[in-house]
Amino acid sequence: MSGPVYERVALIGLGLIASSMFWAMKRGGLAGEVTGYARSEETRDTARRIGLCDRVCDSAAEAAEGADLIVLCVPVGAMGAVAEEIAPALKPGATVSDVGSVKRSVINAVAPHLPEGVHFVPAHPLAGTEHSGPESGFAELYDNRWCIVVPADADTDPEAVARLRALWEGMGANVDEMDADHHDLVLAVTSHAPHLIAYTMVGVADHLRRVTESEVIKYSAAGFRDFTRIAASDPTMWRDVFLNNKEATLDILGRFTEELFVLQRAIRMGDGDHLHEYFTRTRAIRRGIIEAGQDTEAPDFGRAAKTP
Amino acid sequence: MSGPVYERVALIGLGLIASSMFWAMKRGGLAGEVTGYARSEETRDTARRIGLCDRVCDSAAEAAEGADLIVLCVPVGAMGAVAEEIAPALKPGATVSDVGSVKRSVINAVAPHLPEGVHFVPAHPLAGTEHSGPESGFAELYDNRWCIVVPADADTDPEAVARLRALWEGMGANVDEMDADHHDLVLAVTSHAPHLIAYTMVGVADHLRRVTESEVIKYSAAGFRDFTRIAASDPTMWRDVFLNNKEATLDILGRFTEELFVLQRAIRMGDGDHLHEYFTRTRAIRRGIIEAGQDTEAPDFGRAAKTP
Repeated sequence: MSGPVYERVALIGLGLIASSMFWAMKRGGLAGEVTGYARSEETRDTARRIGLCDRVCDSAAEAAEGADLIVLCVPVGAMGAVAEEIAPALKPGATVSDVGSVKRSVINAVAPHLPEGVHFVPAHPLAGTEHSGPESGFAELYDNRWCIVVPADADTDPEAVARLRALWEGMGANVDEMDADHHDLVLAVTSHAPHLIAYTMVGVADHLRRVTESEVIKYSAAGFRDFTRIAASDPTMWRDVFLNNKEATLDILGRFTEELFVLQRAIRMGDGDHLHEYFTRTRAIRRGIIEAGQDTEAPDFGRAAKTP
Repeated sequence: MSGPVYERVALIGLGLIASSMFWAMKRGGLAGEVTGYARSEETRDTARRIGLCDRVCDSAAEAAEGADLIVLCVPVGAMGAVAEEIAPALKPGATVSDVGSVKRSVINAVAPHLPEGVHFVPAHPLAGTEHSGPESGFAELYDNRWCIVVPADADTDPEAVARLRALWEGMGANVDEMDADHHDLVLAVTSHAPHLIAYTMVGVADHLRRVTESEVIKYSAAGFRDFTRIAASDPTMWRDVFLNNKEATLDILGRFTEELFVLQRAIRMGDGDHLHEYFTRTRAIRRGIIEAGQDTEAPDFGRAAKTP
């Protein structure tokens, strides 16, 4: 890739995802000028202090003004209001995108506000850590992770889609395309239901009276710890995810509960064969993930090897 | 510590836990001679090939003969039979221990077989990876992890307990003592219920028809991946854990289901405040774990930093 993919990019919302995008765009020389805006003055001050964005603006409209790409990096529940606010400032031919974890409700909330001649290409990078805020980003976050691009409808300009794909690929991601409803179901399985389950398990441990909190923490390496990492994600983001992907998440949780009851019954009845067979099957899925390069089998779980 | 803690140690069962014990004892000069036995000839051959144990024996009784410490490193459901087999070979004053994840049922299964004059000091090292077998062990597995020592009854010889504690401390572990029932409840919360839940979630993903397995694997980094790691643990070991810690595990799973239903209802009713408050509370628990040194907040999740 020679030269930037977009001359001017605006990042609305400056948390983990946006700040990682900024550093990844700089690393790859993918954008000319990057403007940024965050609702909180404290976040804007932090961004100015650490050099996050070439120019930090005091309104979303000012940041969006004249930009070729505007990326909404705010919680899913705030996307509609932000789109309404920036709409008058959008220049013809610009592309609006987002990074929300839910796509159908974001399309429903954002599309009605966008003027004719502005392209809308939602996207969802599947990457994150349990940290949030403008100082949590790093250039390597998207390396070898997936980004799902979800064109708002069948009429979306293919050129606008191709350009957004090139940006994500330049930031290190592998890009897939799918429609919004399928995206929301896939994510309910791979992300939204697991997060709710992790939150629940951590909550159970928290108000057990016969086991002290210090015991739960001391002995967490026996399995519980892996749940706490994903249960430490940003509360506002996750509230919005569940409220906006309600149907698919409740569907998967219903299946989960059924399945759990069958296993509980096997434990109660002492059906060791059923348990053994089930646990053997789940082990094979893990192997698939390692083979697909989305994790490693190093004894340290390979987290250090993520960025070679 | 000058000189070995035990002159002769026998490891019965040669999987991840026993092989890590062997390498950790060698690292610390904690044992004179270490004998080993595994039921499968293939495992014994592998052990001989890689130098796991000073002497690999062809029967459990032969390995236990003359040992000062005999550690049962077999699945919880096999402990009783192994104890019966080695009982005639045990020398007076020897200590029998184990590494099982459940303590009450192991005590019930093993204690009746042990002759007078033999000490029984069960233990449970809270450490592991998703790998199993004689080649999966490494000397650092227990560094800064907890080992819970559970004296079989109030009459257990304090000297025998102190010596076993010294061994585990020499292998890098922090040692705690508690009674068997409390241990089983604490572990149901921190380990057994989380594992069953992880197995269940992976199983749900496996037989969803509208989402392909390759999609689940490709997009696993969004949360699901953390579940697969613990759902890849040894099926026989885990079957035995659930069958032998039935009551405490079912108790915790019952609480978990109640809690999950309350959160599902909040999603269905659109109660964002309830969700936000819940997710804020669980985040604090995560911070406690990091402060207790049982995980780190490094962007790579600190797995590489485990062994400083």
